[in-house]
Amino acid sequence: MRKNYGAKPYLFPQPVLILATYDQDGNPNAMNAAWGGQADFDKILIDLSHHKTTDNMLATGAFTVGIGDAKQVVACDYVGLVSGDKQPDKLAKAGWTTTKSEFVNAPIINELPISLECKLLQVLPDGMHLGQVVNVSCDERYLGEDGLPDLGKCQPIVFDPFHHTYLNLGEVVGKAFADGKQLK
Amino acid sequence: MRKNYGAKPYLFPQPVLILATYDQDGNPNAMNAAWGGQADFDKILIDLSHHKTTDNMLATGAFTVGIGDAKQVVACDYVGLVSGDKQPDKLAKAGWTTTKSEFVNAPIINELPISLECKLLQVLPDGMHLGQVVNVSCDERYLGEDGLPDLGKCQPIVFDPFHHTYLNLGEVVGKAFADGKQLK
Repeated sequence: MRKNYGAKPYLFPQPVLILATYDQDGNPNAMNAAWGGQADFDKILIDLSHHKTTDNMLATGAFTVGIGDAKQVVACDYVGLVSGDKQPDKLAKAGWTTTKSEFVNAPIINELPISLECKLLQVLPDGMHLGQVVNVSCDERYLGEDGLPDLGKCQPIVFDPFHHTYLNLGEVVGKAFADGKQLK
Repeated sequence: MRKNYGAKPYLFPQPVLILATYDQDGNPNAMNAAWGGQADFDKILIDLSHHKTTDNMLATGAFTVGIGDAKQVVACDYVGLVSGDKQPDKLAKAGWTTTKSEFVNAPIINELPISLECKLLQVLPDGMHLGQVVNVSCDERYLGEDGLPDLGKCQPIVFDPFHHTYLNLGEVVGKAFADGKQLK
């Protein structure tokens, strides 16, 4: 037997996506985007209603996506609760500082190790914002010996839409494009 | 200092999305979709090039999304490696059985606890398939006492696009829409 929940936003585990933008005066802002995902090799799609962030994205044509992590979970949650219009010092309250991306006109949150630096390609119906990923970068302090982000150091979190909690990742349980070969 | 990787599909942690469809003769098929996410409260977006699954989606107007989990990691990886056109008994090889959704003309994989049952709304440019979630269901054996899926029983996995591994979830590290209030 199955239990039915109706039409709910239960695709999961969901990444925690922190969007950072500049306004027209170059002031940085950030928000927690509930819904989004990878769309094509070098594109991402973020669903957004009207926010200061969407105004900024349209004005600058750019945004970055920082990956929420366990060390910053309180700040990540906070920037999803408060509007930058009503709280101009929102980033300071979150304890975050920024550096301008080398690649797009948008700020990188220094406290979040990984950032996807994007140009705004298109706003599709229903507020779906399509971004062209121009560069992905990681703070070198969070790299492993292989030169890639070390997830033990970065501590990315996921969102559980059933219980509204954030969770750490656990152990590796499989190798993609490899484990399935045994059934061939 | 930051390390730059260029334009890469590094939005993460990514959910593992198993699409299930019927062909025109009612034969079930399944595949592992690399890229997708929640898009709006009751919509999801999956990026797909041409597959047997996309033919089936267009023919039936429906699909389901099963959430990949640790117990089924080998099968989840397998259905991403092999085409249903070339391997007609792909589901049997994966060890999977199906039940027709009560809500859409698509199969639910019985071995994956959670399923999002969707109508195909639209195929956007670049192969982005927009689905209307009609129902989400969970096998009752995987529910917690609160009537919601128990993630300890379901064991959903995520994909790490840097190292091409699948990972379990770990402990709860925060409460959404709550922890951030302390910074207000």
